[in-house]
Amino acid sequence: MHAEIITIGDELLIGQVIDTNSAWMAEQLNMIGIKVVQITSISDKHDAILSALADAGNRADVILTTGGLGPTRDDITRNALCEFFSTKLVFNQEAFDNIERLFKSRNLRVTQLNREQAMIPEACTPLLNTNGTAPGMWFKKNNKVYVSMPGVPFEMKSLMSDHVLPGLKSRNTSHIEHRTILTQGVGESFLADKIINWENSLPGFIKLAYLPQPGIVRLRLTASGENEEFLKKSVNEKVEELYQLIPQYIFGEGEDTLEEITGRLLREKGLYLATAESCTGGYIAHLITSIAGSSEYFKGSVVAYSNEIKHKILGVNEETLSTHGAVSEETVKAMANGLQQSFGAECAIAVSGIAGPGGGSEDKPVGTTWIAVNTPKGQVTRKFTFGEHRGRNIRRTALAALDMLRAELLNL
Amino acid sequence: MHAEIITIGDELLIGQVIDTNSAWMAEQLNMIGIKVVQITSISDKHDAILSALADAGNRADVILTTGGLGPTRDDITRNALCEFFSTKLVFNQEAFDNIERLFKSRNLRVTQLNREQAMIPEACTPLLNTNGTAPGMWFKKNNKVYVSMPGVPFEMKSLMSDHVLPGLKSRNTSHIEHRTILTQGVGESFLADKIINWENSLPGFIKLAYLPQPGIVRLRLTASGENEEFLKKSVNEKVEELYQLIPQYIFGEGEDTLEEITGRLLREKGLYLATAESCTGGYIAHLITSIAGSSEYFKGSVVAYSNEIKHKILGVNEETLSTHGAVSEETVKAMANGLQQSFGAECAIAVSGIAGPGGGSEDKPVGTTWIAVNTPKGQVTRKFTFGEHRGRNIRRTALAALDMLRAELLNL
Repeated sequence: MHAEIITIGDELLIGQVIDTNSAWMAEQLNMIGIKVVQITSISDKHDAILSALADAGNRADVILTTGGLGPTRDDITRNALCEFFSTKLVFNQEAFDNIERLFKSRNLRVTQLNREQAMIPEACTPLLNTNGTAPGMWFKKNNKVYVSMPGVPFEMKSLMSDHVLPGLKSRNTSHIEHRTILTQGVGESFLADKIINWENSLPGFIKLAYLPQPGIVRLRLTASGENEEFLKKSVNEKVEELYQLIPQYIFGEGEDTLEEITGRLLREKGLYLATAESCTGGYIAHLITSIAGSSEYFKGSVVAYSNEIKHKILGVNEETLSTHGAVSEETVKAMANGLQQSFGAECAIAVSGIAGPGGGSEDKPVGTTWIAVNTPKGQVTRKFTFGEHRGRNIRRTALAALDMLRAELLNL
Repeated sequence: MHAEIITIGDELLIGQVIDTNSAWMAEQLNMIGIKVVQITSISDKHDAILSALADAGNRADVILTTGGLGPTRDDITRNALCEFFSTKLVFNQEAFDNIERLFKSRNLRVTQLNREQAMIPEACTPLLNTNGTAPGMWFKKNNKVYVSMPGVPFEMKSLMSDHVLPGLKSRNTSHIEHRTILTQGVGESFLADKIINWENSLPGFIKLAYLPQPGIVRLRLTASGENEEFLKKSVNEKVEELYQLIPQYIFGEGEDTLEEITGRLLREKGLYLATAESCTGGYIAHLITSIAGSSEYFKGSVVAYSNEIKHKILGVNEETLSTHGAVSEETVKAMANGLQQSFGAECAIAVSGIAGPGGGSEDKPVGTTWIAVNTPKGQVTRKFTFGEHRGRNIRRTALAALDMLRAELLNL
């Protein structure tokens, strides 16, 4: 089964927006054994849409489009779809109810423009979009599937997960088995060196891909074939070997995040956490509180961006700050202890570092970071030397701190 | 003059890599008045490359390809190019000298594989790639230009800047003028309603696009034609009208962000900010501190995720919390005042809301949010009713709070 992705919108063609939808969709399609043969970005133009649909239909069995479904006048995808499928727009009550529900929840009134979004091609099966006003639309033509979705990433993603992927999966017979192992704190090439013998021992039907992100390298194993049981068993065996080989780097699998895993451990052990953040500027607290229910194990944070606040709010001695500097083991120890006392939390994370681009010195170059983690077991500290990029230093510091806490919690 | 971009590589089609090259190339082409009509990602396959080149030649005058030029065996672009342009590979001394130079600088010896990279199609003009082993290749066919470049972003970028863009610029006469206005706090359809007369008054050569993101709608005006001066003047006039029409919603232009603009205002006025965050969990502080140099106007934050911390650290009366609740005007007022006092900052933001998915009630459904902003001018508060999605409620609260502060700072 072959698929094509068509992304519609002038914003892609003038380079204002990077098309991240396609990569996500391609990854999801691959996971269910559907191969993507082409990704095409085109303009919000009637003729461009029609010819892209026709061309894609000559190459693929499944054609997924995103974009061009907003309420404003630059959105003409629906009319092009009507022409392509020889159908007309009709009012859809379910789509309208969904629009009304969304607007009510925001205390807004439905405008005429929004009402028009409930007009959809008669020939399609509408897919309920609980996150937005434009429904997804599933068409069939010459035994091929065409699905049109909005371009807003989270709307597209929920439509894909709830409707499109399950619908396509049921039409496909060959099996693909995936497992993705998440590692933290080790670079791609070092990791590759450590697991080279294991990698060479993989049978031909299991492929390995390295998927690096700042601070995290994902290892994805993909096996394909007819016998689902056999594929599962083979992949599981190789993953088990990997866990034996590099236990210190693996923190989770699949869609796990460090903030979720750490939160789960805190909840299980009935412990509260607080964070004292300098260089991360609240990013660790943000990651933790992005998880629903985090108030059950997170008390809060002090972002101490100035030495004055480190002293006044966290009780770090002015002498500690002047003798050792804000980025030092002594300071993060004192930050963690002061925080733990005033917040009354069993666990604490304190970080202080030079995120850059300014503020570095020969002794402490940009990227130098100290982290302290307190748990009922005691205090651990660690120094890291990250890179020169501010955003990535903030992200890496947060991941390293959460991983230190995770390791401590596992050993409680 | 119309262009198409073809990116070649299986890594794009399995979602392993997000195609960032195309957006950059499209932006550069637009700046010199060349309109991109399609971006296509295809596999490293002979037939896919040949048919993509042929199709693109039917739509565009300039066809730029990236990828598929590495030394390993999955790279077959050069052979496909030879077939397409009816030519053959020949040894190119300049390309080989460049390969030798690069290898010497890394203390490596040239392998047979690398030597083969100096074999290029006889019909092309080679473009020297000082950053890598694969040269760019400039072809002409039927009065159209085809350029093949490596996919490594910094190699492609230097080839574009040094050779391709100057070469194309000299062939082009038409001009494109863009301006993007950023609005906050108003949905796409409401905005469209408010500016419908203005939109209808736009001359035919100026196009308007709505580019929505959570909490922000960008309005992009694009004018194309021969007379650069006239285009600039026309676009500026229409933008000026827009500023008159919806001043309360416009916070910036182009690549501006609210955190940058607010930071700039704080710095200009010599004021310090601190934030007291409940539902945003540190996200406002994170946005502010993602800007380099923010320590010059940001003191820090208290993330008060529990009532206990709101009381103990921010000094909110237990009575206020029990009578009015954590999500109330009284509480955010007290949070802002308590924070301002203990942090010694001239400006303060305090937010408290129900981010969801849990915690809502009939009185205060998920999405209910109170924001208080203190400046030397005094205190303002506002209630918002956002939606049901946790991540977006956090983002919208942060943007609304920064925009409230921005408005206050402008009126100081």
